[in-house]
Amino acid sequence: VKIARRGGLLLVGPNTMGVYSAPVNLRALMPPVSPVKGEVALVSQSGNIGTNLLGFGSTVGVGFDKFVSSGNEADIECYEYIAYFGADPKVKVILAYLEGIRSGRRFMRVAEEVSERKPLIVYKAGRTRAGVRAARSHSGALIGSNEVVRAVFRQTGIIEASTVNEMLDLAKTFVRMPLPNGRRVGILTWGGGYGVVASDAFEEAGLEVTSLTEESLRELDKILPPYWSRGNPVDLVGTFDRQIQPPCLDIIARDENTDIVVALGFIVGSGAFAGSYRSAPWRKEEEGEIVKSWLSKADEENMDVLVEMVRKHSKPVVAVTLTTDMDVVRRAAEKGAIVYPTIETAASVLSKMVRYVEYLRRRGKLRMVED
Amino acid sequence: VKIARRGGLLLVGPNTMGVYSAPVNLRALMPPVSPVKGEVALVSQSGNIGTNLLGFGSTVGVGFDKFVSSGNEADIECYEYIAYFGADPKVKVILAYLEGIRSGRRFMRVAEEVSERKPLIVYKAGRTRAGVRAARSHSGALIGSNEVVRAVFRQTGIIEASTVNEMLDLAKTFVRMPLPNGRRVGILTWGGGYGVVASDAFEEAGLEVTSLTEESLRELDKILPPYWSRGNPVDLVGTFDRQIQPPCLDIIARDENTDIVVALGFIVGSGAFAGSYRSAPWRKEEEGEIVKSWLSKADEENMDVLVEMVRKHSKPVVAVTLTTDMDVVRRAAEKGAIVYPTIETAASVLSKMVRYVEYLRRRGKLRMVED
Repeated sequence: VKIARRGGLLLVGPNTMGVYSAPVNLRALMPPVSPVKGEVALVSQSGNIGTNLLGFGSTVGVGFDKFVSSGNEADIECYEYIAYFGADPKVKVILAYLEGIRSGRRFMRVAEEVSERKPLIVYKAGRTRAGVRAARSHSGALIGSNEVVRAVFRQTGIIEASTVNEMLDLAKTFVRMPLPNGRRVGILTWGGGYGVVASDAFEEAGLEVTSLTEESLRELDKILPPYWSRGNPVDLVGTFDRQIQPPCLDIIARDENTDIVVALGFIVGSGAFAGSYRSAPWRKEEEGEIVKSWLSKADEENMDVLVEMVRKHSKPVVAVTLTTDMDVVRRAAEKGAIVYPTIETAASVLSKMVRYVEYLRRRGKLRMVED
Repeated sequence: VKIARRGGLLLVGPNTMGVYSAPVNLRALMPPVSPVKGEVALVSQSGNIGTNLLGFGSTVGVGFDKFVSSGNEADIECYEYIAYFGADPKVKVILAYLEGIRSGRRFMRVAEEVSERKPLIVYKAGRTRAGVRAARSHSGALIGSNEVVRAVFRQTGIIEASTVNEMLDLAKTFVRMPLPNGRRVGILTWGGGYGVVASDAFEEAGLEVTSLTEESLRELDKILPPYWSRGNPVDLVGTFDRQIQPPCLDIIARDENTDIVVALGFIVGSGAFAGSYRSAPWRKEEEGEIVKSWLSKADEENMDVLVEMVRKHSKPVVAVTLTTDMDVVRRAAEKGAIVYPTIETAASVLSKMVRYVEYLRRRGKLRMVED
């Protein structure tokens, strides 16, 4: 570091897998990973996790503008990269995988300043004694008490990812969805059980399964059979009439009592589903293929509906694939729609988005959408 | 129900999607789902979730022997199905999706009796006020307080699944893995960051990231470069020598200090990984295909290694795909190996397996393996 300083050089690392910058087409990375270009910046103290996220981003629909594998941070520290990304107008969302934070006060000041302008999403590793031991032998990071770290995150508006891959789900959501006004969720479900599961998951994550307005209920009455539940979740009780889903979703999304809308069974995922259909003994191979292509077409059309609903109602309208079919997650992302791999991911990500909005509001930093 | 009783009939449902029984090839189900045959029985108060799990089982490697969509349970109740599955020697693991439990005392007696003989895995929906509301309009179930339900589960040895899909991960693990002797985990990792993430996840789930014996460390010294971490997780620091992984895994699995072994980066998942390689601008299409088929072959060989390690050391030896590649999850299952979609799933499932073993031990119900 001394020698570098004397020569006017800044050091990345040591123990780094390199850097990436989309605007200048710089891809100085150890593994031959080539990220999709996008609006997300990532700093990672683990080169392996960092480059994995770059590559996996292309599967789940997260494009990157800049990346640095910061390693053991002998010279430049994570807060400096975050400050740099914070000042970069091309970067809309910042991700950080951190094992340790050395300059605590500077980190806090930068985090607070940056998260008032854009979402700063952190996965903090080294939370347990075993994790700290592993981190010491890995990046050599010094680690503060977990309670202190959590308090710092709360105070500075940092959004904490629960898992490494949730960083990507959070990034995708912040890039593609408008900020929700509040925590009230409307649910459309094709089957009742998943409506119950989702109600639990969203409430446990701190969201509110709202009541729909009388007007919405009356409009739904016109479409749904008389025995429908007349409440939220709106349960389509397994109807095979595909024309019913989009107008129901539209009514829920239009309702002034909903801030967020989640659709279950709306994007089926042809892979896992058709797989089990195809193996049905009374069906021929061709019939399986017909079911698969029909499901696939229905999914494609419904992805377009999701995109249209977000545009029309300016609130997050998302779907969940109940079989963790990563293929529909990717195809939806290509179309600009969001499909989460599980109900629990949706609950976690959306509740964190709401908490971030509340943080911005407390700080008086919520701005109108610029068109 | 009265009329059925008078005629000597038992009623399933109402509000049911039917029943399935592999031994007699009975598939009386509403959706055309055809499960893979296996050793798992499932009772579900939601027909949609139940039949979805049957179909999704073929993707993640869970075969079914019997299934009943129990619906609103006007006549036969869930505890009666569970007692029936408990007495059936063809059923090795029992799954139940429940929104409400009516005959509480009978349910408890049956659950206690059954879980001394085989794992009884329950996903309990209707845990929150919104969930209860949704459940009432769905299956009409009466629901006890959540605290009471949890206490009942603890007392009766019931294994509670955290998500609907975790029921399948738990079932698969109990069917394929020997019961672990304790909670000490050994970790093999290809990259350091994931070792830290896994250490946190396993400790947070109540497992113990153990110390390896001096003997194991010396044996690893012979294989690994001098700068290796000399501890658990055993970090292969991204070596490209694939011959190193299996002997390292063998040393960790042989170690008397490990009860469970988890390998990270051992099954790569060719899909997501090769996807990002393929898009590298300096590579031709064919080169991408070569990388993909090489990764795919490596994964196949490593799945065989996992199966061999379990057989040889009689303890759970499992892997995690860090990109949630469901394709390798399925292929591994076909070979008899277990690959989890995420580190957190591995931590949750394995810790529940350990707690079940401890329950059996407290009850004096742990038997030797019958060959």
